[in-house]
Amino acid sequence: MENNITLIGLGAMGSVLGELLVKNRITLTVWNRTREKANTLISLGANYVPDIRTAIADSPVILLCVVNYEASREILSGLDLTGKTIIQLSSGTPADAREMQNDILARGAAYLDGVILATPPQMGQPSTPIFFSGDEQVFREQESTLKILAGHLAYMGPAVGAAAAWDLAILSTMFGMQFGFLHGARIMEAEGISVGALGNVTSTLSPVLAEMVQEVGQDIENSRFDQPLSSLEICAYCFELLERHATEGGITAPFPAFGLEQLNLGRAAGFGKERLSAMIKIMR
Amino acid sequence: MENNITLIGLGAMGSVLGELLVKNRITLTVWNRTREKANTLISLGANYVPDIRTAIADSPVILLCVVNYEASREILSGLDLTGKTIIQLSSGTPADAREMQNDILARGAAYLDGVILATPPQMGQPSTPIFFSGDEQVFREQESTLKILAGHLAYMGPAVGAAAAWDLAILSTMFGMQFGFLHGARIMEAEGISVGALGNVTSTLSPVLAEMVQEVGQDIENSRFDQPLSSLEICAYCFELLERHATEGGITAPFPAFGLEQLNLGRAAGFGKERLSAMIKIMR
Repeated sequence: MENNITLIGLGAMGSVLGELLVKNRITLTVWNRTREKANTLISLGANYVPDIRTAIADSPVILLCVVNYEASREILSGLDLTGKTIIQLSSGTPADAREMQNDILARGAAYLDGVILATPPQMGQPSTPIFFSGDEQVFREQESTLKILAGHLAYMGPAVGAAAAWDLAILSTMFGMQFGFLHGARIMEAEGISVGALGNVTSTLSPVLAEMVQEVGQDIENSRFDQPLSSLEICAYCFELLERHATEGGITAPFPAFGLEQLNLGRAAGFGKERLSAMIKIMR
Repeated sequence: MENNITLIGLGAMGSVLGELLVKNRITLTVWNRTREKANTLISLGANYVPDIRTAIADSPVILLCVVNYEASREILSGLDLTGKTIIQLSSGTPADAREMQNDILARGAAYLDGVILATPPQMGQPSTPIFFSGDEQVFREQESTLKILAGHLAYMGPAVGAAAAWDLAILSTMFGMQFGFLHGARIMEAEGISVGALGNVTSTLSPVLAEMVQEVGQDIENSRFDQPLSSLEICAYCFELLERHATEGGITAPFPAFGLEQLNLGRAAGFGKERLSAMIKIMR
């Protein structure tokens, strides 16, 4: 039973994780509210256990991949977890992770918090990232098994909320890019240019974009807001252009309206001649 | 006089362009409303001409790098442009470019519209992008000289508004990433994690982020909105996490509020089970 893992949750992500484990010769017990989702895994050799108590008792290591922490709590409620290692891969906030760690430790089990920064088809690849935080010893013990799930594992420190914080911060950056891109797609449509091409060119320019974000990060870290290469005034001028183009082209522009409103708050606070990073000062 | 260029506008960007041209043995005439900004260029060998009429008469090719198209129009107002080649490098909308092309052609000159996708210190490097659109013959004639300014020149087609459209679409994507990142920076601060590190990790992950944006571009191009890997519902769940974290951490969260409002419009329109790209449908 040394190499035995119990996987709780067989949604789109959990099912892929289960397949990777079974295919890499891990003795896998799976549990899900409905049995149907386990059929593929059963055919691959996984052991489906309909009783959650037995499923937990079956393995020393329990992987959780359900919709959120609340669902995790409900599933584990009242079960004996003594001596188990619980690894949480569901999405939540740093406070969720702290609360869960407190609960799990009080029940005599070890706990590791993880976040998957990828979609199901990206799992199992060398560059796919999973971030972990909390008990480093648990991370090191399970590292080689966890590498089956994703090649790029990162331990973000003993503060158990760190992985969730990183997840949320990267999601925020990624979705920001998406909302900006969606408006860019409308600009392309309005001018009769291919939207697919915009995606391809953006991809080519992504190192330049990353450099700009990295610079804002360094600015904030070092409280360096003066001597801008491109002042907040100039950024606001760009948003005025985006708004004027939207008016000329008859397209709705929620993102430019949002950005200009924010930058105007920055200007009103007196940061017009400073770097874009100065926006953090009105957000604190 | 074959290799002679007149540069109009010596702001932060114009001054750098002038330096690059002079240092690469272009015979350069410069004009600016105030003489002081020309001092460095004069010491490098540029010819400063205080009278705009003489400055234009001096060279066959006129580079414009001023604050906007309105300033360009005022500067060129009433001047004889017959036989000149006017290259616009100021920022504007596609309509600005079309209007300016009509005016310049009517005055017997050739016109090329360009946008610089970089900051002044990035100029002159092999990977720095300038996009052009309009008269391809003018672009090809001037290409080797323009390469002095930035190594990565791209001709975006004969529709003169194309370069401005590309500029706005890429700016929108870049600023979206920045607004998302600024909220991410607040998450790091709230959890006591280095903001500089967020910039560095984001940079490492930028190929993954670019892939996601590229996929949304392909989705829109091909009207492919179904069978999501990560549905609009799941995206909205991420924004609910961002909002809840902001409440738990006591941080103001304008970007999550914006994103959740938009995604809720997408859900209300019935696209909850579709891809994020489906958001374009409520923006049309």
